[in-house]
Amino acid sequence: MEHLTGRWGVLVPAGLHQGPARFNALRRRVDGVSEKMLSQTLQSLERDGFVQRTVHAVMPPRVEYQLTDLGTTTAAKLLDLIGHLEARMPTVIAAQTHYDRSRTDD
Amino acid sequence: MEHLTGRWGVLVPAGLHQGPARFNALRRRVDGVSEKMLSQTLQSLERDGFVQRTVHAVMPPRVEYQLTDLGTTTAAKLLDLIGHLEARMPTVIAAQTHYDRSRTDD
Repeated sequence: MEHLTGRWGVLVPAGLHQGPARFNALRRRVDGVSEKMLSQTLQSLERDGFVQRTVHAVMPPRVEYQLTDLGTTTAAKLLDLIGHLEARMPTVIAAQTHYDRSRTDD
Repeated sequence: MEHLTGRWGVLVPAGLHQGPARFNALRRRVDGVSEKMLSQTLQSLERDGFVQRTVHAVMPPRVEYQLTDLGTTTAAKLLDLIGHLEARMPTVIAAQTHYDRSRTDD
């Protein structure tokens, strides 16, 4: 669970849910991720079995990342959660405004 | 999203999904959480509109925490994700073992 929480642990699987990608293409899908963070996140996700890294034996070698079956089902649930929260952002913002106002009134 | 990731941002809503609770009862449901972390997490969740804090006008005042509608639907999706991952822990552990072994062989 730890690796799938935090900003990139959620956004990288979401990016790969669009389909397999090479490193730089994936980086363009995941807005704001640095080379280092993307590399570290992919390594964790590969180690945990959510992402498969394939080296195609061409010249120069082509490295591609894709979700495993486990990664695909998990990313779908993450995307479901993200979509749910995004759709309810106005409710969250209203709650925050109300909370901050009630604190100021004290 | 940030507040719902991380250990307690997931486990506190999961604890409240069992039903409303006072602070100490909730603390017993959320294994390993400190008083300080539970207090901070509840404040964030209340501010974002996932948790409602109710002060009952009795003597001494009774404070109870419960999920809002938004908190309930969100907690259900979090629990769905947690259940999915827990059920697949053997797959994750096998992937980790395989990954670590392949690295040692290099």
